[in-house]
Formats: sequence, structure tokens, C-alpha cells
Amino acid sequence: MTTTGPGRPRKQQPSRPGATARDEILDAAAELFTTQGYANTSTRSIAEAVGIRQSSLYHHFSHKDDILEVLLAGTVAGGLAFARTVCALGDGDRSPVAAAARLHAVALYDGTQLCTARWNLGVLYNLPEARSQRFHSFMADRTELRGLYQRLGAELPATGWAGTSQNGDLAFRLVESLVSLRADGLNTPESPLQAADAGIVLCGLADSLAAIRARSAELVTSMG
Amino acid sequence: MTTTGPGRPRKQQPSRPGATARDEILDAAAELFTTQGYANTSTRSIAEAVGIRQSSLYHHFSHKDDILEVLLAGTVAGGLAFARTVCALGDGDRSPVAAAARLHAVALYDGTQLCTARWNLGVLYNLPEARSQRFHSFMADRTELRGLYQRLGAELPATGWAGTSQNGDLAFRLVESLVSLRADGLNTPESPLQAADAGIVLCGLADSLAAIRARSAELVTSMG
Repeated sequence: MTTTGPGRPRKQQPSRPGATARDEILDAAAELFTTQGYANTSTRSIAEAVGIRQSSLYHHFSHKDDILEVLLAGTVAGGLAFARTVCALGDGDRSPVAAAARLHAVALYDGTQLCTARWNLGVLYNLPEARSQRFHSFMADRTELRGLYQRLGAELPATGWAGTSQNGDLAFRLVESLVSLRADGLNTPESPLQAADAGIVLCGLADSLAAIRARSAELVTSMG
Repeated sequence: MTTTGPGRPRKQQPSRPGATARDEILDAAAELFTTQGYANTSTRSIAEAVGIRQSSLYHHFSHKDDILEVLLAGTVAGGLAFARTVCALGDGDRSPVAAAARLHAVALYDGTQLCTARWNLGVLYNLPEARSQRFHSFMADRTELRGLYQRLGAELPATGWAGTSQNGDLAFRLVESLVSLRADGLNTPESPLQAADAGIVLCGLADSLAAIRARSAELVTSMG
């Protein structure tokens, strides 16, 4: 039974994904930040969207920027963990196809996360707020992820038009461009694969793309 | 001589680029929007940054969103005008090199604008506010520009790994990725050319890149 008034318990049937009130707060905040804007969203409006009191929200998060910190971290956490594991594997097969498959798999996995997350939180990356010292931990993760792309790109043969120096960074940029593509409503289920493929083509390995794709799919499946 | 108090005249020596108070307002707003955030910037703080009274600002712009509209339009105006002219030329030489040079020149010109504008206003593209109906005119311009990239890409031979369907859009995305690159402090004077080159490589024309670059440079010079 649902009672009303200041002492009412949290709704019995959560309307949002997540097992806990904390998950529901994060989901509501992600929706509001990406649809109304970060600065335009108050903790009060987040609490209202969850159906809890503002004081209950403060039990989980002291400040709105604590919520943003968790959400931003979530946009890179999966891709970063995957890339770290793939880079740790890198001492094995050093053939061009195997090396390119590692970069392709990271791009595909990372891009899939960006495209299939419930909210397109990457639209917040370029916010001046997100680039403040307050969120240095997120930016450090994103910088590490970018560095892993660069490292994987540097392990490829110098077949690309720009040598190997741009291989990884262009793949990273193509993957991040999925955020805008999604914001524009132009992404399709194939978009993450297209971004990963394009990254490989820029490495000068278009002729081996089918073999690279197959090896990349194995990597994603074995680690997913 | 500068007097103080409510009736003081505008400073004799403008501290910002622009011949007029309107230009100074736009410059101050661009700085504040890109460094503090759009929602966090008030018309009062813009007026203060220019050194004029808020009432004087309202003489030029009724609302803060009128300022954003002008600034967003400015980020695509140059590239769009250039792309329209290039597309109008398109009935001439239909050789692959000439067609690719048109796409390359548009990407190079557009990317140079994004990288050399005084403020990196592209960071505002993904703001939920910028995607509201209020700014449909900007989004219509950006959509037209994207469409011109796509049209130029579709005129190329089907040598790319994805046929011609993605040629123009991937070039557009690589150029827009310069906005994030700049926000990350990683752009160099070569970045716009690298983005344009990468767009051509994705079209499968890496072998003709030197000729395409030369022809593109002629186009930019003749129209710049």
C-alpha cells in the first residue's frame, strides 16, 4: 500500500531499471542530464523523477556532481576494462591481422557500449563542467582509454597513409563520433562495426578486413 | 577618461575583437559559454565581461538564446557557404581526383574553421538546449552541410570499403571530431588536413591522395 505525505516509503514498483534506489537515481539523473542539460537539472527534480524525497537522494549522493561523476565513469568503464585486458593479451600473436583485430575489437566493444547504453551520456563529454578538475578521475580514465587505442595502433605495420602515428587516435575519434551520430538520431545497429572497420581501413589494412573482423569477433565473444 | 557608476560610457578601448558592441557581446558570450557552460552564463555576466550595462546588452539581444543562435550559426556558415559553392562547381570535371578534391576541400575548409575560430563553439553542439526547436535554424544548416558532404561522397567511384554510402558522412564525422580534439588540447595546425585526408582514405583513394590534395588546395585558394 502506498501512503502519501512526507513519510511515505519508496514506491513498491520501481519505474526505472536498477535493483536499488541508487540505480534509480542514476537512471533518472542520466535522463534529465541528457535531455534537459546538466546545469538545468536540480537534485530536487532528480528526486521527483524517482519518486523519492530530496533528503533521501542526499543519503546516496551529497552533491549533483557526485552523480555526474558516477555517470561519466560508467561511460568509459566497460571499454577501458576491455581494452586493458586486450592489451594484456597483446604479447601473444604479433601478426598484423591479430594486432589489428585487437584494435578493432576494442573499438567495436567501446562503440557498442556508447550506442547501446540506455542514455547517450557522451553528449556531456564536451561540457565545460565535465572538463573541470572535479572530474579529473573520469578524464584520466578517458585519457587512459585513448592511450590504449594509440598503443594498439602503434603495434600495426606502417601501412596506413600517415604511418602508425595516427592509427589509434583516429579509431578513438571515430568511435567517439558515435555519440554525435546517436544524438542526431542517425545511428544504426551497424554503426559501431562501421566505426571499427573505418579505423582499420585508415590503418591501411582494408584488404585484410574480413580476417580482422572474424578475429575481432572471436575476441569480443571470448571476453564479453 | 573613464567614469564609474551606472551612467558610465562604454570603454573607449574595446578589450575584445570586433568593431561593434554587438561583436564584443558575441565574443564575451562565446568565451563564457565555452568555458563556464551555457546554462551557467547569465546575460548579466556577459554584459559585465564586455563592460556594458545589462540594459545595453538587451538593446542588441532580447534573450540569451538569441546570442547562442547567432554563435551556433557562425560555426557552420563559412563551411556551408564554401560547400554550396563547391557543389555548384561539381558539374565540371567528373574525374575521381576532381570529385575527391571537392570533398577534401570542403572538409579542409570546414575543419580549419572549427579549429581556428577564436572559441571552440562546437562543444555546444551536443547540448540538449542546442537540439531544441529554438535552434532549428542552426540544425537545418548543419543538416544541409552534412548532406553536401554526403552528396560529394556519393559522386566518388565505389572504391571505398563500404561502397559510396558512407563516404561523405564519415568525412563529416572526422571533421566534427576536431571539436573534441581541440577541447582535449590535442589539435595541431595539421589536424584539419589530417581529417580531410582520412576522409579520402576511407573513400578508397589513398593512392591518389597527393593529386587530390593538390587539387583541393587549388580549390581552397581560388575560393578562400
